[in-house]
Amino acid sequence: MERVLVALGMSPERAALGARLTAETDRDGVRTHGIARLPRFAEMVRLGRIDAAAEPTKVLAAGAIERWTGHRGPGNVAAHAAMARAMELAGEYGIGLVGLAESSHWMCAGSYGWQAAEAGFAALCWTNTLPNLPPWGAKSPALGNNPLVIAIPRQDGDGASAPIVLDMAMSQFSYGSLAQYAAQGKALPVPGGYDEDGALTTDAAAIERSQRALPIGFWKGSGLSFALDVLAAMLAGGKATHAFSADPLEEVGQSQVFVAIAPQAVASMEELSRVAQGAIDGLHAAEPVEAGRPARYPGEGTLRARAESLRLGVGVDDGAWQKFCELEAEVWR
Amino acid sequence: MERVLVALGMSPERAALGARLTAETDRDGVRTHGIARLPRFAEMVRLGRIDAAAEPTKVLAAGAIERWTGHRGPGNVAAHAAMARAMELAGEYGIGLVGLAESSHWMCAGSYGWQAAEAGFAALCWTNTLPNLPPWGAKSPALGNNPLVIAIPRQDGDGASAPIVLDMAMSQFSYGSLAQYAAQGKALPVPGGYDEDGALTTDAAAIERSQRALPIGFWKGSGLSFALDVLAAMLAGGKATHAFSADPLEEVGQSQVFVAIAPQAVASMEELSRVAQGAIDGLHAAEPVEAGRPARYPGEGTLRARAESLRLGVGVDDGAWQKFCELEAEVWR
Repeated sequence: MERVLVALGMSPERAALGARLTAETDRDGVRTHGIARLPRFAEMVRLGRIDAAAEPTKVLAAGAIERWTGHRGPGNVAAHAAMARAMELAGEYGIGLVGLAESSHWMCAGSYGWQAAEAGFAALCWTNTLPNLPPWGAKSPALGNNPLVIAIPRQDGDGASAPIVLDMAMSQFSYGSLAQYAAQGKALPVPGGYDEDGALTTDAAAIERSQRALPIGFWKGSGLSFALDVLAAMLAGGKATHAFSADPLEEVGQSQVFVAIAPQAVASMEELSRVAQGAIDGLHAAEPVEAGRPARYPGEGTLRARAESLRLGVGVDDGAWQKFCELEAEVWR
Repeated sequence: MERVLVALGMSPERAALGARLTAETDRDGVRTHGIARLPRFAEMVRLGRIDAAAEPTKVLAAGAIERWTGHRGPGNVAAHAAMARAMELAGEYGIGLVGLAESSHWMCAGSYGWQAAEAGFAALCWTNTLPNLPPWGAKSPALGNNPLVIAIPRQDGDGASAPIVLDMAMSQFSYGSLAQYAAQGKALPVPGGYDEDGALTTDAAAIERSQRALPIGFWKGSGLSFALDVLAAMLAGGKATHAFSADPLEEVGQSQVFVAIAPQAVASMEELSRVAQGAIDGLHAAEPVEAGRPARYPGEGTLRARAESLRLGVGVDDGAWQKFCELEAEVWR
């Protein structure tokens, strides 16, 4: 991956970071947002939509909040830089915020939560996206599925980093996930949108046809998606969802917000971890729907997937691997 | 209301603020969280659970983040003070965070969003609650319905303050709302929980029996509720949801987080309002499900309810009014 990113125009150092973030995404089991996305990234570089060589720069600073621009460079590397800067600000002020305008798809949202939490910071971050979700009360897409990340540092009983990381898009299911269910002819486990008659349905193919995917919590996720979009565009000084084309190959210029908080400014990591452990124990003690399968905290599944990858190797879907190999043959030889 | 709050032990100045916040809640159409809640507040004061005279104090400061304790005093007045302090910090640093431990029910979550946004600040705030929501994958309550508020300052075309304010609890419907549907024998507009057989249902009475209300977005709201709880308890140095009794009359000691952001440190209010207006126009342009009823932004309905109250007077439910009159007769004469 690093060689491919260099061939596409990234500096060796930034290519190494981009490749690492991508590999870690697959390692953590988020196969839709790792190596599988590189062909689209390459296509957007070749179309001139993403400038592989562009690096984020500071636009203005006002104490603990700053505005940066990504100059339409690679989104994951820019997001990593923005969160790193928010963490520096949090180290200085206790909390720091970076608004990043004119970025591009940041790949796996959770990456920047893990980045912060593993360094001992709590974090909130989110991005806007192209319009792909109808607001509550409407049929045509006007909201993004704007993923929101909340990350909380924590050490387990052995003193190892074991953060709580929520990575939550605003749609109940992604269109990628709907396509998988539709291809397999399987019903969604819960309603995921509307059919062409406007009825709530678990039929993924019907939702693909209507393009009326469901925001989480109906009117609630609709409002949350809108608020995140406006706040990101305001703080970053960048584009809001309505200014994006509906063509995914033109989805550049995202506005993103990175907030880092230094909880160790107010308590020791031991005390913070005790608070987290109490909450986790309470969650695990809830009576499970299926015996022996307790509720999980956000990030618990990721830590399990990571451990399995580190033990058995990182699984990659055959199709994604083949497309990556074709990309490599194309750009690197 | 002010006389009642003074009779319960609040200082005249704090009683005036508490009464104003409560009246504004009814003025804004949130009848469940205004005057209707005063009898429970009074009961908790009489039971010694809430100390009406207690005022919040600073525990520690670390730059732009601070820990405060509410000493189990009235929650709305304490939350107002905490947001005011977060705004002071944001004025100084660009962003400020106050974690408030040992508070009590803050009444209407949105109040503190409006407070910030009307003063030109963006804000995020949330509280934890007693356990009243089963996590995804479990049947017994272990999560709170932890309301989350996102507030964004904005001026309308006439230069009047017209903020965007999201006030969103983590359950699809409150138990209060389920009780209303059940009493009227009406089906919920969307599934709101599980019946006693574990099937998703729109039957409010069945959900009341199972006590399995639905987090918004199923696994997503479940994760969000948990993350907000842990982060609040950590930053405030206070209780997490698992440490609360399930008895609403013992629901004191909430942990709350107040983040204020000064967007005017990075852009003029005119520029910020243009960003918001573009997003609102985009939302309103989405094809409505019902002709002539465009999608609304968070807070739009509140502004309409407020305008109606200011024109016609503030509507109060008969039952709530009668209980308040009984309370007044009891404590004030």
